[in-house]
Amino acid sequence: MSDLTQILLTAKQEKGLTFAQLGQELGRDPLWVASLLHRQATASAQEAEQLATALGLDLSVVKGLMAYPVKGSLNPVIPTDPLIYRFYEIMQVYGMPLKDLIQEEFGDGIMSAIDFEMAVERVEDPKGDRVKITMNGKFLPYKKW
Amino acid sequence: MSDLTQILLTAKQEKGLTFAQLGQELGRDPLWVASLLHRQATASAQEAEQLATALGLDLSVVKGLMAYPVKGSLNPVIPTDPLIYRFYEIMQVYGMPLKDLIQEEFGDGIMSAIDFEMAVERVEDPKGDRVKITMNGKFLPYKKW
Amino acid sequence: MSDLTQILLTAKQEKGLTFAQLGQELGRDPLWVASLLHRQATASAQEAEQLATALGLDLSVVKGLMAYPVKGSLNPVIPTDPLIYRFYEIMQVYGMPLKDLIQEEFGDGIMSAIDFEMAVERVEDPKGDRVKITMNGKFLPYKKW
Amino acid sequence: MSDLTQILLTAKQEKGLTFAQLGQELGRDPLWVASLLHRQATASAQEAEQLATALGLDLSVVKGLMAYPVKGSLNPVIPTDPLIYRFYEIMQVYGMPLKDLIQEEFGDGIMSAIDFEMAVERVEDPKGDRVKITMNGKFLPYKKW
Amino acid sequence: MSDLTQILLTAKQEKGLTFAQLGQELGRDPLWVASLLHRQATASAQEAEQLATALGLDLSVVKGLMAYPVKGSLNPVIPTDPLIYRFYEIMQVYGMPLKDLIQEEFGDGIMSAIDFEMAVERVEDPKGDRVKITMNGKFLPYKKW
Amino acid sequence: MSDLTQILLTAKQEKGLTFAQLGQELGRDPLWVASLLHRQATASAQEAEQLATALGLDLSVVKGLMAYPVKGSLNPVIPTDPLIYRFYEIMQVYGMPLKDLIQEEFGDGIMSAIDFEMAVERVEDPKGDRVKITMNGKFLPYKKW
Amino acid sequence: MSDLTQILLTAKQEKGLTFAQLGQELGRDPLWVASLLHRQATASAQEAEQLATALGLDLSVVKGLMAYPVKGSLNPVIPTDPLIYRFYEIMQVYGMPLKDLIQEEFGDGIMSAIDFEMAVERVEDPKGDRVKITMNGKFLPYKKW
Amino acid sequence: MSDLTQILLTAKQEKGLTFAQLGQELGRDPLWVASLLHRQATASAQEAEQLATALGLDLSVVKGLMAYPVKGSLNPVIPTDPLIYRFYEIMQVYGMPLKDLIQEEFGDGIMSAIDFEMAVERVEDPKGDRVKITMNGKFLPYKKW
Amino acid sequence: MSDLTQILLTAKQEKGLTFAQLGQELGRDPLWVASLLHRQATASAQEAEQLATALGLDLSVVKGLMAYPVKGSLNPVIPTDPLIYRFYEIMQVYGMPLKDLIQEEFGDGIMSAIDFEMAVERVEDPKGDRVKITMNGKFLPYKKW
Amino acid sequence: MSDLTQILLTAKQEKGLTFAQLGQELGRDPLWVASLLHRQATASAQEAEQLATALGLDLSVVKGLMAYPVKGSLNPVIPTDPLIYRFYEIMQVYGMPLKDLIQEEFGDGIMSAIDFEMAVERVEDPKGDRVKITMNGKFLPYKKW
Repeated sequence: MSDLTQILLTAKQEKGLTFAQLGQELGRDPLWVASLLHRQATASAQEAEQLATALGLDLSVVKGLMAYPVKGSLNPVIPTDPLIYRFYEIMQVYGMPLKDLIQEEFGDGIMSAIDFEMAVERVEDPKGDRVKITMNGKFLPYKKW
Repeated sequence: MSDLTQILLTAKQEKGLTFAQLGQELGRDPLWVASLLHRQATASAQEAEQLATALGLDLSVVKGLMAYPVKGSLNPVIPTDPLIYRFYEIMQVYGMPLKDLIQEEFGDGIMSAIDFEMAVERVEDPKGDRVKITMNGKFLPYKKW
Repeated sequence: MSDLTQILLTAKQEKGLTFAQLGQELGRDPLWVASLLHRQATASAQEAEQLATALGLDLSVVKGLMAYPVKGSLNPVIPTDPLIYRFYEIMQVYGMPLKDLIQEEFGDGIMSAIDFEMAVERVEDPKGDRVKITMNGKFLPYKKW
Repeated sequence: MSDLTQILLTAKQEKGLTFAQLGQELGRDPLWVASLLHRQATASAQEAEQLATALGLDLSVVKGLMAYPVKGSLNPVIPTDPLIYRFYEIMQVYGMPLKDLIQEEFGDGIMSAIDFEMAVERVEDPKGDRVKITMNGKFLPYKKW
Repeated sequence: MSDLTQILLTAKQEKGLTFAQLGQELGRDPLWVASLLHRQATASAQEAEQLATALGLDLSVVKGLMAYPVKGSLNPVIPTDPLIYRFYEIMQVYGMPLKDLIQEEFGDGIMSAIDFEMAVERVEDPKGDRVKITMNGKFLPYKKW
Repeated sequence: MSDLTQILLTAKQEKGLTFAQLGQELGRDPLWVASLLHRQATASAQEAEQLATALGLDLSVVKGLMAYPVKGSLNPVIPTDPLIYRFYEIMQVYGMPLKDLIQEEFGDGIMSAIDFEMAVERVEDPKGDRVKITMNGKFLPYKKW
Repeated sequence: MSDLTQILLTAKQEKGLTFAQLGQELGRDPLWVASLLHRQATASAQEAEQLATALGLDLSVVKGLMAYPVKGSLNPVIPTDPLIYRFYEIMQVYGMPLKDLIQEEFGDGIMSAIDFEMAVERVEDPKGDRVKITMNGKFLPYKKW
Repeated sequence: MSDLTQILLTAKQEKGLTFAQLGQELGRDPLWVASLLHRQATASAQEAEQLATALGLDLSVVKGLMAYPVKGSLNPVIPTDPLIYRFYEIMQVYGMPLKDLIQEEFGDGIMSAIDFEMAVERVEDPKGDRVKITMNGKFLPYKKW
Repeated sequence: MSDLTQILLTAKQEKGLTFAQLGQELGRDPLWVASLLHRQATASAQEAEQLATALGLDLSVVKGLMAYPVKGSLNPVIPTDPLIYRFYEIMQVYGMPLKDLIQEEFGDGIMSAIDFEMAVERVEDPKGDRVKITMNGKFLPYKKW
Repeated sequence: MSDLTQILLTAKQEKGLTFAQLGQELGRDPLWVASLLHRQATASAQEAEQLATALGLDLSVVKGLMAYPVKGSLNPVIPTDPLIYRFYEIMQVYGMPLKDLIQEEFGDGIMSAIDFEMAVERVEDPKGDRVKITMNGKFLPYKKW
């Protein structure tokens, strides 16, 4: 975790702000804002300013978020944290079926991880609430030339 | 890919059946059916029979699906296939933000990958259709004792 | 090992307290308390306060235990410490038999590592005392959908 | 999985026998019997004969169980199967706390994985039955010389 | 290398055909055709037929090229073959500079490896002919949401 | 990233200079200049001086660029950053086809990564601009002796 | 190498003491004493005191040796140092033969690495002196249950 | 394990011969003979003949032992078999102390693993018999030039 | 080791030919001929014919040597065979010094492994004969552009 | 790279000395001197003094070279620096042929990497100067016992 991320998360905690509230300030999804704080996305000048204001930080600190980051925040490559590991397990178990299904529907290509968005929701359930995650990425067909 | 998976996928292709059609035969989601064919899920006696009928295979062949599989169908652990790799990349980039967001909403715990379901949809879009993937898993809070 | 863990373990050693005694203070199992000090579990506000009092530390130090940790305390992934390695060896030798036995009894699913508790006991034995470890986790059956 | 293990598990399935029943035939714990079938333990001449009779196999087939196996049945080293992975996760999360607790109680040394036994039980619970695993190994203190 | 690739490359060699000639038959770039034979791209029905005719093979053999392949043809992940290794070395040496330059010109995003084409040319040079490789991929800007 | 690289990139950013502008100052391609700043190439005394002037840095700082670097700037070996990963993916998918094509044209040998140059260009396209990368390396035939 | 090990080895060098001399002070084998200084063994209060006196160090420094260490002093797992690597090579070459021989003599089990001692001797030889290493560990038979 | 090793070990088992007996036939240590059967050493013509006679095998089968083997019989590199793993653990725990001690006694150099021999003995002990392993290798000092 | 290599080495052994003799037949260095048999180099039509004659093999068998091989004959990447491992160790110990020395003499660049030859000689020595290996590769200076 | 190596290389650079000149001062080969500076060899008291004088450093700084180093200076194990990587590639391509040739000439054994020396020379060539590397190590035959 970079020093900048550490500073931002500490300021957020001290202000008692949630990602949902920060999302509203910036007019963006809470998950995208969390990605920004973890240095996985790039802020515009305006977004940096809004964030500085919301977190009570000096703009000079926050403008590091305007530089293009080297992405990929997990270490080791297959993480040991149980919450994150489950997503790797899901791909171990459901990766090939998913590939078959996407290709059956769309042909040879991939779901973009760049022209992409993702959201988290709570689904209430008497047997225990559920986490609902939605991924939405453009289908990119393989080019022939 | 196991021999059984190979036989099942070949039969499906020769019959010209889609996972969606097989899903309707068994009353199950197409992705779950794809998982079953890839030996990542276990069939009941009735499901094995329905599948044998649909694929025109002998029941003795299909009943191997009733044994509990050793799960995890990817090799190497981080797959080189671009379609599947994108899901690993999504976790590299959005894994820590996702963890923060889930914990902010639910507390210390995980989204279950067992009491879990996942679906794929096509979202039409004039700029290019999109793949929408929905994951839905029970939240499991860490027990204290 | 995090700085916080270091501080907590040093304070515990200087006070001459055992995990069993800390467990009684917090009304929790000694192993769970040890997990808390190693930043593998999360304290409630009350537990943080009780721990601060017991260890003679300022509450501001201890409240870091209320944040959700990135879990997984071993490095390298397969540890070289002989005491911990033995548990990896047990899974190498008895992992597949255990899987067969659990599935024979419960069906397709897993023992939860989240809705889970574990305890250590000494069993006196004239030929040399024995370590008894008990794991107790909810069985989670695979969902079909 | 060795060819011999395959033959034994198939015979067991065709006879409709459980590990518990095989355990009674041999006067051994079901988990030890499962380990024997997976080539992680060594049979005596009498045990090989009892097993051959119970499974309806020729003694010449079964006597391979009397040879000392090269142990360690998992591949890759950190298995992708979710049921088995959970035990690795338990060590990632609770390994260091466990080490502290065992050493606090017993001093510098390890729990033997050789002079060792393990058992699985079902614990009924209205909120969902639980898996209880008990490990019991001799404590071995480090020798000084 | 898959059996099908082996068959296709052998037929090509026996017919004495170059990838350039096959490219002309199919109206495609020689590199794409080489990718098709190595099972890294998918043929249309017409392309499969043209290839079968050109190579003098039965259509039933060639139609395996119409299935979507699991892509990624190198093993081990970082190949030991000197010709291919040089491309990995180029990324080790020039990868970060390339990232800086692309981002300086285009902003935060990537060059697509899907909406992508690549070509090889010989550049005559009195000091020794040179290999010229051209990659051309759509720039994909990171989406914010 | 080395301290020297950090200093150079910061000075470049503060001066508001692009690699293209630095390339013009030194009479070199922008990508080579980016490689120099990332410590993957070696400056002559004159180039160091030109760079110091352009970036407003003391010559004593910049002359570290005249030492021969230990090359290879990526960590881990297969990088997690999506922009750079795509080049690894391209080799996974098109590496063997490329090898076949180069050898068909040139015989047994390699494209040099030392007597080598590379350039990046923007190709305007109404459907989205494209990144064009050109590699140009001397063909080196294997010597027999 | 831990800071404590560094301090101890430096003090030993400055005092001009050998491990053999330290061994005599503590009434222990030189190799065990070397293990203690490398934080692979645990000192009693008396041993810590004797060591402090011998090395001219303050007891407060040395008493860190009374804590139970996380063992395993090599990094990377297969060390590159030629002296240590040879022992890995010995196991690569003679490991399976050794296993066969021990099992032929003792049955299914292992040589303990805990109830274990090891010594180094010089054997004079006109063709070049030889290193003689003796390992002596309790045989532990696998328990059946 | 090579086919030849398999044949030799099976013949040995059917003849009911121990490595000690084979050692006497060849006038060699039992461990060296075990190494020969595992294809880690090379037989002379006479040794091959003696072995063929002792095992009742055709000389044409056994003469494969006269070819120089590719050595290194363990897979994976760090073996999972508990008996062999203990030797790796011994190096993890005692490797650096051993290096210090050998260098203190002999100077900069290594114990040869080529001009080397090793033996296994049973040491009777009322508290449980012990395995004694003796390694004896020529010390090779680093050459300066 | 490929099947073709196996066939060639067996034929060589049955004919009782050395690499030196084969080298004379082809007018090439013995090491290059050994490389050819191991599928690390490519034969001309004439060389294939000469080799077929020398080994008494059918030309159709030998002409596989005229195809361009996927090079790199070691597995695992860092080989366990002691003879080959020593060359890796030499690079671990003398790699950086070698780099410094070559660069001091030649500037920034590499020794080519393609425009390269290597030879092995015996150097008689009363204290034990010595292996002399000579590598000779063109120096390739890094291009600036 | 250790701090000591850093200090020595900086002093050497500031004095404008080559390894060849340092070699003459110490009466040793330039490559051995480079190894000494990189902490891969051990200095005698006299060599340390000569080096201190030549580099204008205090003897107390240089005497760290008299301690036995933990050898192996490359990281990662397979280095990414192109100059050093080529030597790994040479072993990938020519390792097995080299093994065959050495064994054909000398029998079962290895070339020592300890009783070993290596030298670098420039060979002038109108088509581009060449690097010549000579390795010379004692042949060590495998002992039988």
